[in-house]
Amino acid sequence: MQMNDLILVSVDDHVVEPPNLFDKHLPAKYRDQAPKMNSMKDGQDSWVYEGTVVPNFGLNAVVGRPREEYGFEPAAYDHIRKGAFDLQSRVDDMNVNGVLGSLCFPTFPQFAGTLFLGAKDKTAAKAIVSAYNDWHIHEWAGAAPGRFIPIAIMPLWDIDACVEEAKRVAKLGVRTITFPDVPAHKGLPSIHTDYWDPLWKVLSDNKMVVSTHIGSGINVPHLSKESPIDAWIVTMPMSIAAATADWLFSPIFRKFPDLKIALSEGGIGWIPYFLERADFTFSHHNAWTNSNFGGKLPSDLFASNFITCFIDDKFGMHNTEFLNTDKITWECDYPHSDTVWPNCPEILWDSLKHLSPEKIDKITHLNAMREFSYDPFSILGRENCTVEALRAKATHVDTSPRVGMGGNNPSKGDGLPVTSGDVAKLFS
Amino acid sequence: MQMNDLILVSVDDHVVEPPNLFDKHLPAKYRDQAPKMNSMKDGQDSWVYEGTVVPNFGLNAVVGRPREEYGFEPAAYDHIRKGAFDLQSRVDDMNVNGVLGSLCFPTFPQFAGTLFLGAKDKTAAKAIVSAYNDWHIHEWAGAAPGRFIPIAIMPLWDIDACVEEAKRVAKLGVRTITFPDVPAHKGLPSIHTDYWDPLWKVLSDNKMVVSTHIGSGINVPHLSKESPIDAWIVTMPMSIAAATADWLFSPIFRKFPDLKIALSEGGIGWIPYFLERADFTFSHHNAWTNSNFGGKLPSDLFASNFITCFIDDKFGMHNTEFLNTDKITWECDYPHSDTVWPNCPEILWDSLKHLSPEKIDKITHLNAMREFSYDPFSILGRENCTVEALRAKATHVDTSPRVGMGGNNPSKGDGLPVTSGDVAKLFS
Repeated sequence: MQMNDLILVSVDDHVVEPPNLFDKHLPAKYRDQAPKMNSMKDGQDSWVYEGTVVPNFGLNAVVGRPREEYGFEPAAYDHIRKGAFDLQSRVDDMNVNGVLGSLCFPTFPQFAGTLFLGAKDKTAAKAIVSAYNDWHIHEWAGAAPGRFIPIAIMPLWDIDACVEEAKRVAKLGVRTITFPDVPAHKGLPSIHTDYWDPLWKVLSDNKMVVSTHIGSGINVPHLSKESPIDAWIVTMPMSIAAATADWLFSPIFRKFPDLKIALSEGGIGWIPYFLERADFTFSHHNAWTNSNFGGKLPSDLFASNFITCFIDDKFGMHNTEFLNTDKITWECDYPHSDTVWPNCPEILWDSLKHLSPEKIDKITHLNAMREFSYDPFSILGRENCTVEALRAKATHVDTSPRVGMGGNNPSKGDGLPVTSGDVAKLFS
Repeated sequence: MQMNDLILVSVDDHVVEPPNLFDKHLPAKYRDQAPKMNSMKDGQDSWVYEGTVVPNFGLNAVVGRPREEYGFEPAAYDHIRKGAFDLQSRVDDMNVNGVLGSLCFPTFPQFAGTLFLGAKDKTAAKAIVSAYNDWHIHEWAGAAPGRFIPIAIMPLWDIDACVEEAKRVAKLGVRTITFPDVPAHKGLPSIHTDYWDPLWKVLSDNKMVVSTHIGSGINVPHLSKESPIDAWIVTMPMSIAAATADWLFSPIFRKFPDLKIALSEGGIGWIPYFLERADFTFSHHNAWTNSNFGGKLPSDLFASNFITCFIDDKFGMHNTEFLNTDKITWECDYPHSDTVWPNCPEILWDSLKHLSPEKIDKITHLNAMREFSYDPFSILGRENCTVEALRAKATHVDTSPRVGMGGNNPSKGDGLPVTSGDVAKLFS
């Protein structure tokens, strides 16, 4: 097996929504309430919703820039690579990077659609959520058959509406929803209550995965305003550890043993340590805490119900025997700053070439295909899905770094470390 | 090499301070302002300081109980094993557990002495901090020569006072201070300012380690009031990861390249992943973040200046080639609930017996002895320091679990999971 033989399915990328997002699928009577794309002063593009400018138009969508020009918030479509928001350009960018399949989280509605929790008009918001999903299913994922794993946002403020929407998108072929890693931190009932059970039932019945992206409910704290932003970037993926423990010790999987959760962008190298610690905690403390895994250990539950996900993780790839290799998946994180586009195949191959071809195939695509019920081979033919085959279709794609794309650069131009405080100023 | 040949030095234990703490070393003029031990109603013992009852008299000091009777806050001396607060009993409990040396963090002043930050009378507080250190140095660590690594608290609100106290305790042989992992979260200047430089200089000049205990500045959040307390316990050690990144990207070690920091109770199995991520972040982002490691990588700095520490960590012991084995140390965590006293030798041996005797000796005692300038062999003779030799002196020590010791048990007696909310009620 060679690098060119890899078949890559990414279970965590991002779409920056185009201006015409709500043109086609929102009923006319809600057209006035829809978020609108406004080109603002200073060449900024922003969504405006219920009279408020939404931050994070294109959060961190810096792919294709020279690294000196990475920033935190490109502020206009002109500032970002077209593949971030234009479907055909995205497919080109996937091809040139040798990536077959992609699961794209939302941007302006936030990773788990929690923007709409603050809506004043909840009736309109429910229609807007459905229209968002219809756009994603039909105009984004559906417009390039076999290339995307569609994902849906939920009207999280209303469990009955969640059930209705989950059932609706299930019929349209969606096999995963995005859900906050810690809903209680968004003011929602916690995962330890019965509140969400009707949603888990629909998901379980339809083999739909709960995709929880880092930063979707709770985020890693900035430790001081002078802290270099690098320190925050380092700990972002592992910040899902606390939420992971919360889900692991929740009653959900005892009630819905077939339900699966994906820890999107969580990384994997820390997980064997975490599972050893979880098993120790259970064995050492359950006599007084009354935790109960039905005769199993926390690590057993994790192995059967938790899907792990990494961008690059040599240490994790060195320790696959401590993980369930049937649940490890890969991600590209396009167009965010941690992506190594357009060199994903080279970097990933270097990390996993020591593994058996069977393990490599599981990690790069077979696990993602099984867990997310995604079947590109029947549409495209397996032989057309390899790194080599996809790159052959993308010889016209210009991947050279583009200088001077613009946006909000938090650097003060003084060569001093960019700090959490510098970044906070961008959003204030 | 056999288990009985191990020599165990623990760099993280805890002392529950006895009632006579301030009797001997506090100048008479401050006697009225000293914290006083009051035996309260309902058989509770509490420190009272400046008119306020201090919570956490013996936080989590449940060693020696049956696990069904673990709780969160034993509330009186009668509720805890005598070794928690009585020196001779502590030495007996170390012997029966085969532990040669111990570094004991404070309890009622909090792990980094941050209780005194809130003092109204700062002049008295400075004298109280010194008296605490004198008690610790002379009455606790000094009363059993060769058996303890003394540690000092600092008058953190005043950098000049910190410098003075650090110099003073250095002359008394102290080679480590306890310091909050995230001082900014205690309202103090962050580690990225120059504020602490005079303290770092004294520590560096005197080969004194900065010991940062988990939970000393920032703590892992409770994710919801219904969250099982186990979830919180699982993630406590790894909660120091964010602070670790903050120290790693700070300017401190460029200015004081000989300064060492210990991540007390942080565990080790997650660290290789963390370092790979830190190196990636540096290489991938420093063009815009301006981080600077002087031609080295973050992992190089970690290897030279960060002391790691674990209770039990099979995964970490499986991956010592990804760590600097000259900086790995071990801890017992007596008398807290995660300790495996009195079976530490058995459990540790099972985790590291596959390593070479040279590596085992480094991890179990040689690293701790070098980094903390601790030399028990010259006092006691190496042959008297092994697990076998120490246990031979402790045949009279009763280690059988003691039932009915009492205290605040957060369990509702209904067999349902003990939650974060149940524990919070104990402290409200």
